Amino acid sequence: MDLNSDLGEGFGRWTLGDDDALLAIVTSANVACGFHAGDPTTMRRVCAGAAAQGVAVGAQVGYRDLAGFGRRRIDYDPAELTDDVLYQLAALDGFCRVAGTRVTYVKPHGALYNTAVRDEAQAAAVARAVAEYDPTLPVLGLPGSALLRCAGEVGLRTVAEGFADRGYAPDGTLVSRREPGALVTDPDEVVARALRMAVGGEVVAVNGASLPIAIDSLCVHGDTPGAVALASRLRTALTEAGLALAPFAPGDLIRP
Amino acid sequence: MDLNSDLGEGFGRWTLGDDDALLAIVTSANVACGFHAGDPTTMRRVCAGAAAQGVAVGAQVGYRDLAGFGRRRIDYDPAELTDDVLYQLAALDGFCRVAGTRVTYVKPHGALYNTAVRDEAQAAAVARAVAEYDPTLPVLGLPGSALLRCAGEVGLRTVAEGFADRGYAPDGTLVSRREPGALVTDPDEVVARALRMAVGGEVVAVNGASLPIAIDSLCVHGDTPGAVALASRLRTALTEAGLALAPFAPGDLIRP
Amino acid sequence: MDLNSDLGEGFGRWTLGDDDALLAIVTSANVACGFHAGDPTTMRRVCAGAAAQGVAVGAQVGYRDLAGFGRRRIDYDPAELTDDVLYQLAALDGFCRVAGTRVTYVKPHGALYNTAVRDEAQAAAVARAVAEYDPTLPVLGLPGSALLRCAGEVGLRTVAEGFADRGYAPDGTLVSRREPGALVTDPDEVVARALRMAVGGEVVAVNGASLPIAIDSLCVHGDTPGAVALASRLRTALTEAGLALAPFAPGDLIRP
Amino acid sequence: MDLNSDLGEGFGRWTLGDDDALLAIVTSANVACGFHAGDPTTMRRVCAGAAAQGVAVGAQVGYRDLAGFGRRRIDYDPAELTDDVLYQLAALDGFCRVAGTRVTYVKPHGALYNTAVRDEAQAAAVARAVAEYDPTLPVLGLPGSALLRCAGEVGLRTVAEGFADRGYAPDGTLVSRREPGALVTDPDEVVARALRMAVGGEVVAVNGASLPIAIDSLCVHGDTPGAVALASRLRTALTEAGLALAPFAPGDLIRP
Repeated sequence: MDLNSDLGEGFGRWTLGDDDALLAIVTSANVACGFHAGDPTTMRRVCAGAAAQGVAVGAQVGYRDLAGFGRRRIDYDPAELTDDVLYQLAALDGFCRVAGTRVTYVKPHGALYNTAVRDEAQAAAVARAVAEYDPTLPVLGLPGSALLRCAGEVGLRTVAEGFADRGYAPDGTLVSRREPGALVTDPDEVVARALRMAVGGEVVAVNGASLPIAIDSLCVHGDTPGAVALASRLRTALTEAGLALAPFAPGDLIRP
Repeated sequence: MDLNSDLGEGFGRWTLGDDDALLAIVTSANVACGFHAGDPTTMRRVCAGAAAQGVAVGAQVGYRDLAGFGRRRIDYDPAELTDDVLYQLAALDGFCRVAGTRVTYVKPHGALYNTAVRDEAQAAAVARAVAEYDPTLPVLGLPGSALLRCAGEVGLRTVAEGFADRGYAPDGTLVSRREPGALVTDPDEVVARALRMAVGGEVVAVNGASLPIAIDSLCVHGDTPGAVALASRLRTALTEAGLALAPFAPGDLIRP
Repeated sequence: MDLNSDLGEGFGRWTLGDDDALLAIVTSANVACGFHAGDPTTMRRVCAGAAAQGVAVGAQVGYRDLAGFGRRRIDYDPAELTDDVLYQLAALDGFCRVAGTRVTYVKPHGALYNTAVRDEAQAAAVARAVAEYDPTLPVLGLPGSALLRCAGEVGLRTVAEGFADRGYAPDGTLVSRREPGALVTDPDEVVARALRMAVGGEVVAVNGASLPIAIDSLCVHGDTPGAVALASRLRTALTEAGLALAPFAPGDLIRP
Repeated sequence: MDLNSDLGEGFGRWTLGDDDALLAIVTSANVACGFHAGDPTTMRRVCAGAAAQGVAVGAQVGYRDLAGFGRRRIDYDPAELTDDVLYQLAALDGFCRVAGTRVTYVKPHGALYNTAVRDEAQAAAVARAVAEYDPTLPVLGLPGSALLRCAGEVGLRTVAEGFADRGYAPDGTLVSRREPGALVTDPDEVVARALRMAVGGEVVAVNGASLPIAIDSLCVHGDTPGAVALASRLRTALTEAGLALAPFAPGDLIRP
């Protein structure tokens, strides 16, 4: 099982979350690439830290929207979205290379992630960028999403992730943050849900139904109060449950 | 002899210069990388065009300053400048890779170019970024500049360029655009100066003195009225003078 | 009748359209405010030119999207959209004040204009910004749009405009640029349509039906080849048809 | 005596300092205007809070440099700097107006503040923007600076401020942050220095000499650990020393 988290989401003078603490917990770091967050100096620092600790680096690509932190859907022309994603991916890979590793997967951020769950055109645009840049890179996303389907169609490996702190709709998608049940805030419940997903292969939806869910990675959040402590508890709980934690796409496998 | 020109300097809706016309004339294209000009879609298009025509692609790295087109000196922290340059270089290289070629050299733009003539810290910061990303990449710049000296010191190949349409001070630097004699506007004189530099190895400074100048590339400008026609005349004149025009760092030499 | 056009749509080194030529033709200038186009120096220059020629200045407010020129819909939080619009409006008004005039109306740009035709939340957000800043400012927009309806609901004066070079759907909205019939390119036809709208109060839709249309302003475009010449022809034709051309919201009426 | 502090220095998702806590302590708020920090929604919120608490709002104008937080000197063309300052000033004033107050002074931020201590061209450019926008607005700055001199020359009121937590050179300028003695970190010493400046009219320079200093405002910082507590202590100490704390340019005096 893999634990992934968003890192390097500061910009210049502004910081967000505790990158160093999370690098000691997670196995995969989704590193922001400069369009919605993440300045070059932060990118270098996080890539170096990840390489030093054996944490895999994924490209957390997003819309060009610093003011909105990439959380507002933008109606991109698909070809331009492909180009924006490829630009970010290549830039981050530069910092990985100088840190002795490589970008080993791609995970869209925020509104791009959510849009790519259902929007075929944007999902395909992201998949195309990854396939063009390096067809060996897996795409990390929501099981059943247009993103993973499009990625698979262009020959990319796909990796499904689960969210222990988010409510699930009966169709397996996440409950929108604007609706009740979107967030699971009790730490004990988050841990229990994580184990049920990772070990039991199921998740309880907001209507009480038990849904099968097959995931290779759990996403933990790092930018809220108590987030680091919860991520640490999750890691311990998963380990104690007998799961070996490791990146699904380790950096050393593709090092030249 | 190489002919280099700035290309891909539009941004989104805005265009600048005639990229297609210049790609048919020059042997090396300094492609803007997004910080002072150059959106991802433009970068892809120019890289593809360059690859198709055998034109070498160089990274036209600049300050993060879209509003100022990179023409205003910014007092960067050197480490941050290194990171900004590396980011741009890697991003452009991504578009080169998908076009079947590679970035084969680096040339700073605007105020960064001018600053790196004398500012050791910024010159070293640029050189460091290039050396970290790919120590086989040459740096294109002004003969005698801090940039070429610093690039040489970290083991990079350096390539000197001349400006047929710019006035030279007696010390071999360019006359500032704010001073008289900065620009040579008569096309015949520009061609004559180009030949004298490229063939004769000398340039007449604003004080009338003849200066020795050893260059491997001539820079031609593309964003002024008549620029494309003048670039075309220069190419013809250099060819008729017996000079073989070719990139100093051809893309196909380092293609995988 | 008023003639309005988009002006000041350059950014830094990049220019777009011929502001000076259009200022001699139109009666109202929609001036970009910096978020999708329009740097402060351009804003000052256009405001000064408009004031000198008695052309009314309107705030051409748009999404924060320089790379997309404001032409991509962004799913703004409505409160944030209100703030972004108010910011732009106030900034432009500063340049009007130093030029001895004032912003006298507001017209959204690009995707914000199109979105506000049907999207109640975004339309209301724009109207709120205008009402908060200065409830005497009219809003210029498409007849029947959510924007004009929302503006009216908060007590703003609304002004309807027509597009002589755009196709109309049978319901009075513009044909999308992605569909056939979106653009009228024959200059003679554009002039004829303008006269029919301005004098006859009707427009022929793409299905051949004649639609009633009541407008106080005609929008002319300035950023395409031949646009200035066509705008000039339109002005002449309207004048010869006996229409007095004047701003619907002249600057001098509200000068302190 | 006035207490001023930088507020509203977040941007979108990123926050900096505790605006609400500082609004309860200071008498003047230097509010960032969007070019180096400060998004429109933050600007609105801080202006509303300041108006509600009787805190004066000043325009914290800065270089266009989000990535550098306005802390890197940029070699602006002076006319463009004037325009950038005026744009920011007018935009912030818009949010003040809707909050029932007005911008009542201007204080440059970061590298622009430091540059305007000695650089006549940039200092004059800032002063010109203020004078153009509203010649009744005072400029807040360092005693003896080019900024205050230029502001005075164009007829603006000037207000001198002191820094209790910064080291002073024997010439009355601040010790650069890159040199020893730049920062006074002991809270007791900061309070003692503040009292000596505000009550005694003198400051001890890094060489031990006592310098006369006449100030109408003390600057307190809010973005470091313990900053709010220290600001609160400063306010108490100044009050207990018999100084009445009040804005030097209260908003209600110029309310329409």
